[in-house]
Amino acid sequence: MQQPYLMFLGDVQDQLAAKTCDGIVHWRPDWCIGQFRLPDCKADVRLSDLTLAEGLERGAKTLVIGVANPGGRLPRHWTDSIVDALQRGYDVASGLHDKLSAVPQIAAAAKKYNRQLFDVRHPSGQFSTGTGVKRPGKRCLAVGTDCSVGKMYTPLAMEKEMLSRGMKVSFRATGQTGIFISGKGIAVDAVVSDFISGVVEKICPANDSNHWDLVEGQGSLFHPAFAGVTLGLIHGAQPDALILCHEPTRTHMRGLPHQPVPDLKICMEHNLAAARLTNPDAKFIGISINTARMDSADADAYLTEVEQQFDLPTVDPVRTGVNRLVDNLS
Amino acid sequence: MQQPYLMFLGDVQDQLAAKTCDGIVHWRPDWCIGQFRLPDCKADVRLSDLTLAEGLERGAKTLVIGVANPGGRLPRHWTDSIVDALQRGYDVASGLHDKLSAVPQIAAAAKKYNRQLFDVRHPSGQFSTGTGVKRPGKRCLAVGTDCSVGKMYTPLAMEKEMLSRGMKVSFRATGQTGIFISGKGIAVDAVVSDFISGVVEKICPANDSNHWDLVEGQGSLFHPAFAGVTLGLIHGAQPDALILCHEPTRTHMRGLPHQPVPDLKICMEHNLAAARLTNPDAKFIGISINTARMDSADADAYLTEVEQQFDLPTVDPVRTGVNRLVDNLS
Repeated sequence: MQQPYLMFLGDVQDQLAAKTCDGIVHWRPDWCIGQFRLPDCKADVRLSDLTLAEGLERGAKTLVIGVANPGGRLPRHWTDSIVDALQRGYDVASGLHDKLSAVPQIAAAAKKYNRQLFDVRHPSGQFSTGTGVKRPGKRCLAVGTDCSVGKMYTPLAMEKEMLSRGMKVSFRATGQTGIFISGKGIAVDAVVSDFISGVVEKICPANDSNHWDLVEGQGSLFHPAFAGVTLGLIHGAQPDALILCHEPTRTHMRGLPHQPVPDLKICMEHNLAAARLTNPDAKFIGISINTARMDSADADAYLTEVEQQFDLPTVDPVRTGVNRLVDNLS
Repeated sequence: MQQPYLMFLGDVQDQLAAKTCDGIVHWRPDWCIGQFRLPDCKADVRLSDLTLAEGLERGAKTLVIGVANPGGRLPRHWTDSIVDALQRGYDVASGLHDKLSAVPQIAAAAKKYNRQLFDVRHPSGQFSTGTGVKRPGKRCLAVGTDCSVGKMYTPLAMEKEMLSRGMKVSFRATGQTGIFISGKGIAVDAVVSDFISGVVEKICPANDSNHWDLVEGQGSLFHPAFAGVTLGLIHGAQPDALILCHEPTRTHMRGLPHQPVPDLKICMEHNLAAARLTNPDAKFIGISINTARMDSADADAYLTEVEQQFDLPTVDPVRTGVNRLVDNLS
């Protein structure tokens, strides 16, 4: 996927629908040269409003459809704008469930103008099953008590810090927002289940012995819908270092009122046991807490309490930064 | 999928290629009314050799392509036979990787003659993510130390015994051979990984409180390629009863010389912990050992040793039968 991006917001009706775009703009401001909105769009990712022609003048290579619609649908009235972009020379990338290539006019335009379409929710290519064979390079994986607790945010914050220290590091995306942010990666939850760990072996392959892959986590071993994805991801990543991510105010697993959030200690034990199948030296190197919903005093007290319980650096990437996690990589 | 079946063996060059057919004939002899072979076929599943016309006269409804080719390919020179079958009124079911519907002549014939094509390796339909919500009915799941250790054979043997006792029971297929044997089911390793446990919830849905679903197992929590599938299957099945399957002469995980076979006790602990996420009452009710490669004395000694170690009925489905597993369901 070529950068920079022009962000297509269509005419979505609220800011939450632009969550993916917000993430890309937050982590890769230099790649985002403007936003292209249709009349009546209610979202705003605070970039200059540009036409397709203006975006091209400023160097944009890819039109990114980084919005979510109910059901992941691609509205028919967006087709003209997408075809226009292809004709002008943009590649187009989408995180929607509906495939760009399934719309005949879009597929035809991409072929005619020799442009690329990226449907990041629909991994393509030949995959292999995992092997578990040890490979060189260091890998750090974020795991969590639940979904949406910081398993993308934490490694991205660490990557930024590690780059500023001159360390060899790559963020490895396993979900759609991460793929737009890193320009590559595979949405592992969209891969046929036979290939989960094989795909992850491919995403973070053999590397220099002092290079760190920071692998975006998915789901939770304790989530009854997504634990299979999480386990395959752990086995494929062969992590040397694990970071536990957690949101302390959650009273149950996301979207499942009957399902309790696991205890941190038990959660760590299970993740460690799983990781040691393919890397017997795996260990936790820190804990990342999202305290956004706590006041400052409560957050500080909670971080201190967890740090003392587990004797591991315990941070909130937003409130305290992640330097102490990076310090503890070895 | 309608029964009875006419088994299509094509012109495969060895008996191993007909392993799926062998399984169907073993478990469902009444459904298999003959075999249809092309010249130079080297496999034989010991059914009457019938032409397509003769199969139809004897009542066959579905032509089953239950053979494996290198790469799961559908040879082009089989197309005429398949089209002929559709024209005569057969549905056609295939376990090959290549889809029947991807061959234009086959797709056209199915449409023209209004016949159904079943590609059992390619699940179709709308799937949902799992919920983990408790549902009525009893479920027994086979888990294992490795692949190919009896996780289909054991529940099929139990189903036979339970039917003979007049119990309410259904075998629930999760792999291609099992699907042909039961006439339905979904190959869970071929489902997009987001939906593993959701699909399993669908395969073994709510049922009478005294009805047992016997769920075919897949992979192993200790297999670095397939553990994700196994975990999603465990969570979706919500098993009341677990059976551990094991092959004692194996020195490493199948196909992975570097990967040791797990210790039985540790394997059971991990499977039980996983099962209790969605069914806190899950327990092991027995152990099923494949002793085919051991002599009679060694096999007896091994079964006794395992039985004493775990205080659970320990059987070989072939050597001793599975009655003691059924006795221990409650």
